[in-house]
Amino acid sequence: MQITPRVLKGFRDFLPAEEARRAKFIRILEDSFARFGFLPIDTPVLEYADVLLGKGGGETDKQVYRFDDHGGRDVAMRFDLTVPFARYMAQHRSELYLPFKRYHIDKVFRGENTQRGRYREFTQCDFDIVGTGSISADLEIITVIAGAFRSLGVPGVTIHISHRALLNRYLETLGVSAHTESVLRTIDKLRKIGRDKTLGILTDEIGPEAAASVLAFIEVEGDYGTVLAHVESLLGAAGPEVGALRTIGDALEGLGLTEVVRLDTSITRGLDYYTGIVYETFLTGAESIGSVCSGGRYDDLVALYSKESMPGVGASIGLDRLLAALDELGIAGDDGTGADVLVAMQDAELLGHYHALATGVRAAGFRCEVYPDDTKLGKQFAFAERKGIPIVLICGRSEYEAGTVGLRHIVDGSRYDGLPLDAAIDRIKTLVAGGSRPAPEPAKDR
Amino acid sequence: MQITPRVLKGFRDFLPAEEARRAKFIRILEDSFARFGFLPIDTPVLEYADVLLGKGGGETDKQVYRFDDHGGRDVAMRFDLTVPFARYMAQHRSELYLPFKRYHIDKVFRGENTQRGRYREFTQCDFDIVGTGSISADLEIITVIAGAFRSLGVPGVTIHISHRALLNRYLETLGVSAHTESVLRTIDKLRKIGRDKTLGILTDEIGPEAAASVLAFIEVEGDYGTVLAHVESLLGAAGPEVGALRTIGDALEGLGLTEVVRLDTSITRGLDYYTGIVYETFLTGAESIGSVCSGGRYDDLVALYSKESMPGVGASIGLDRLLAALDELGIAGDDGTGADVLVAMQDAELLGHYHALATGVRAAGFRCEVYPDDTKLGKQFAFAERKGIPIVLICGRSEYEAGTVGLRHIVDGSRYDGLPLDAAIDRIKTLVAGGSRPAPEPAKDR
Repeated sequence: MQITPRVLKGFRDFLPAEEARRAKFIRILEDSFARFGFLPIDTPVLEYADVLLGKGGGETDKQVYRFDDHGGRDVAMRFDLTVPFARYMAQHRSELYLPFKRYHIDKVFRGENTQRGRYREFTQCDFDIVGTGSISADLEIITVIAGAFRSLGVPGVTIHISHRALLNRYLETLGVSAHTESVLRTIDKLRKIGRDKTLGILTDEIGPEAAASVLAFIEVEGDYGTVLAHVESLLGAAGPEVGALRTIGDALEGLGLTEVVRLDTSITRGLDYYTGIVYETFLTGAESIGSVCSGGRYDDLVALYSKESMPGVGASIGLDRLLAALDELGIAGDDGTGADVLVAMQDAELLGHYHALATGVRAAGFRCEVYPDDTKLGKQFAFAERKGIPIVLICGRSEYEAGTVGLRHIVDGSRYDGLPLDAAIDRIKTLVAGGSRPAPEPAKDR
Repeated sequence: MQITPRVLKGFRDFLPAEEARRAKFIRILEDSFARFGFLPIDTPVLEYADVLLGKGGGETDKQVYRFDDHGGRDVAMRFDLTVPFARYMAQHRSELYLPFKRYHIDKVFRGENTQRGRYREFTQCDFDIVGTGSISADLEIITVIAGAFRSLGVPGVTIHISHRALLNRYLETLGVSAHTESVLRTIDKLRKIGRDKTLGILTDEIGPEAAASVLAFIEVEGDYGTVLAHVESLLGAAGPEVGALRTIGDALEGLGLTEVVRLDTSITRGLDYYTGIVYETFLTGAESIGSVCSGGRYDDLVALYSKESMPGVGASIGLDRLLAALDELGIAGDDGTGADVLVAMQDAELLGHYHALATGVRAAGFRCEVYPDDTKLGKQFAFAERKGIPIVLICGRSEYEAGTVGLRHIVDGSRYDGLPLDAAIDRIKTLVAGGSRPAPEPAKDR
């Protein structure tokens, strides 16, 4: 009896072109984080459930893949990279030094509803600076986000920042601070539910006047300095959070990032977790897909596991959402995943010679493979075209005896014959630099 | 109540130096496989249990992390990368082309006994060529293994190959082919249990005379051609497997790989799965740790999921075992994971300037971070030393006003003052090229 090959709902296979693109983006992000002195770490996919979930666990709990292992231990698959990082910092405190900067790019698992392009297995790219409350770290996260998206070749990106205390203080001045939590949750949905619905909910919560004031507060438009001045005037006095935002604003000018960063008081991040600066990041032209990099400052990472307090600031890029956004923008990414050269198999007795030729081509820095079967050349050319390999190297018995090879360029049809291998490699250099490469056939479905 | 931070037995955290080493090795392997035209794929960590385990499942079954998900589906975590690849090839056959070459480097999970350095979460590096029975593919796997270990900078490596049919045929000539399976299992343990114990078990199984013959057969020593000639004489006639091994042997000479490859008839790979050439790979000086790259040819990858037959050949590097072997050989790997330059924080009011300086250093290609807190310089130097950052860039108020910076080299103590940023970057180039970098402190425990 055969088993139907299939994957679980919300889980995905990646075909080569797509996986190559993902791997390339992950490498770019790793290098980008490393340029800022972030270090890589890794933690297990599977952990003790109490370590990941704490004592109780609310909404997250239901989404967690949790089970008893062979030893009867209550275990769970990680649902984010933040909780394992907190456990890691508490556990390895004596082996590390503060401030500590880590990045972690890996898969996480949530058994949530799969509608609207959400997956049950997806990749997060986290970067955090812990062990410092300095505004310098908050600023650095902005520079890291800007640098990462520049490295990824994303044309337009806007980093929206705010400070959690701004809205808190404004709700105090309005005398509705008892409703802070519900108001923040409502505002966090603004982009999703629209202005009118938001106003309606806020009116129900805090009355029409305060609701209108809150909307006016979060809808202040203009450049960084203008918004900050306006916010300051609405608040009536400059608190420490206004000072922090001003320090960041001043630094952004020297860094040439004023065009990239917006002060946006509607950013709340909805979570109780964040206590200071918060970030969301939108790609120009794909704003509707939501933030592709979010985060903020938190007072204590390790509270659940340690008496030591460890403040920090960080953010996370959702790789799957980012790729979806780039798809929407028509930014395909490099599909040059195949080899540069295919050595055709014309005479099975020359098998060793073909592999020696391929070794020579590789030694010159090119990706090269030998077609394994002694079949018709036409079939081998079709294979090269299908896989996106631009050049076929041929060597029949007569070439072998003459010590030469021939080259065929799949795309422009050009031919080069009677070349010693050295000359052929020089020619390959020219042809590959020329860059015409057949596009490998795209995946038919996902 | 605080939760004790801990990981499950057999699971590991990776501290930065170790994770950087793992990540570096994985990149080298990816690039090495890509040079041979292998393409990356990915599959889910979690799959339907029947897809991974087939109808029943013997010994593996007990080791598999298997549970019911929220939807009541019987699911399991992958325990290798071969079974998911088989399912993948059956499922995506119409989107791919044959011969297909893939690599897949990722974690797998087995709840087995954790003694003797075995882990429950470990990383496999698989590479396979499917859809061809050509001996060219068998040969290519050898060249890939040799190329991969050369790229990794491993000094001495020996690839032991055999053909499953050799021993089968020899047991036939001895008239004990009824015992083939148990004899192969015994021989597979030779390295572990030693010669005497092997002879004892074989004697119990097939009698003293046949046992002695079998041992003599698998203990043939000498270079590839010598062993092949001896084996051929023992077998009495050249079967197709001897022809295949001769083709490979001839090709190895042209490829300069005769020193690297040994024909070793004791290699059986114990599994029923393999049907042709089999491989094991040992690092010189760390043979006792076992094979770090094993594999072979199989008749049909997709039999469980499809009526189509798909032969293939491949191998897998066990990353964790490889790293353990390199540790045993004292090959540490690069620990230069920290930044190249630390910008010290001397005056919090110059925060924006420090980040602008760091941006300039990064633009010149160096990894650079800003110390976030305005503390004593001594503490910041100690941080640089701890993290393995060789150069500290300093800029107090007077340097800022003069438009200059100073550099301090942590290792040799050299100082450079009054440099404009351009000149400082030139100096950094010289210092980093010089290469003296403090070693970051090693992990204290695991």
